[in-house]
Amino acid sequence: MPVTPDEYRRGMRLIPSGVTVITTGQGDARAGLTATAVMSLTAEPPQLVCAVNRTVSAHPAIAANGVVCINLLATDQDNIGARFAGVGGVRGAERFKGGRWSTLVTGAPVLQGAVASFDCRVVDRYDFQTHSLFVCLVEAVHAAPDREPLLYVNGSWASLLPVGDD
Amino acid sequence: MPVTPDEYRRGMRLIPSGVTVITTGQGDARAGLTATAVMSLTAEPPQLVCAVNRTVSAHPAIAANGVVCINLLATDQDNIGARFAGVGGVRGAERFKGGRWSTLVTGAPVLQGAVASFDCRVVDRYDFQTHSLFVCLVEAVHAAPDREPLLYVNGSWASLLPVGDD
Repeated sequence: MPVTPDEYRRGMRLIPSGVTVITTGQGDARAGLTATAVMSLTAEPPQLVCAVNRTVSAHPAIAANGVVCINLLATDQDNIGARFAGVGGVRGAERFKGGRWSTLVTGAPVLQGAVASFDCRVVDRYDFQTHSLFVCLVEAVHAAPDREPLLYVNGSWASLLPVGDD
Repeated sequence: MPVTPDEYRRGMRLIPSGVTVITTGQGDARAGLTATAVMSLTAEPPQLVCAVNRTVSAHPAIAANGVVCINLLATDQDNIGARFAGVGGVRGAERFKGGRWSTLVTGAPVLQGAVASFDCRVVDRYDFQTHSLFVCLVEAVHAAPDREPLLYVNGSWASLLPVGDD
C-alpha cells in the first residue's frame, strides 16, 4: 500500500535541491517553468533527466520544440525562480521579462547570471500519471562556478554553508 | 554534437543536492550506495526516481530484491555517506557497520537519524548506457524535519543557510 500524497510530500519537501528554470522556444513563443526535479543520468553520453508536470503550459512547448535550456539559478535570482513558478500569475513569454537571455547551440533561452546552463536536445520521453520524464542530451554548457547556487527546501529558499567553514 | 563527459561533469557538479544512501536486502546480503541522483516523479501515485550505476554492486541486489530504502542523510552522517560511496574500500554488508538500522514495511534497511527515509517498492526500470533509472513507489515514510540535511556540491559536503537569516 503506497503512502498518501500528503505523507509523500511531507517527506519529499525535506530533500534540498538546486532550483532551475527550464526554458524553450523563441520570441513570443518562449515558455518556461521553475523545476527542482532535475538530475544527472549518464556522463557518457552527457544526459540529464527532468520531470515536468503534464498540465503546465511549458510542457507541450518542450515536447514540440524538442530542445530545452536548464538554468541553475543563483542566490540573487530567487525572483526569477518565483516568476517562473507562476507567482503573480505571469505566464508564457511574459515570464522572461525578469531576466536577460541569450542562446548557445539549440536556440533555447539561456539565463544570464545563472550558476550553470545546460543547453539540451530532448532525446527521450516517458509519461507517468501527472509528469513526463524528459531525457536531455547536453549540447552546450555554460558554467559560472564562482556564483552561489539557490536552493529550495521545506518550502523556502536557502543557500549553501560549506561544512567545516564556521 | 553533445559536450564531452568532462564538460558535462564540470557543469553538473555545480548543482547542489541532498545526499542519500539507498539500501536493499537483509542481513549479510544487504547492499547499498551513496546517491545524489534522486528526485520526485509524481505525488499521485507517490513515486520517486533514482539513477544507479549499472556496475555498482548494489545494482543487481536492487534489481533482484525489488525494494529499496532511500535515506536522506543528516549533516552529522557525512561519514556514512563516504562509507557507502566506497571510501576506504568497504563493500557489501560491511558498509552498514557505520550506522544503526531498522525496517519499515518492505524490509529494506532504514537508517536511524536520517532526515527522511522513503521505503519503496521498485515498480519500473529503464536502462541507459551506464545507469538504470528505478521508479520507486513509496510504501512508508519516516521524516525527521528537525534534522539538518547534508548536501553535496562541487566535490564537497555542505549544509544549508536559510536565505535572509544572516
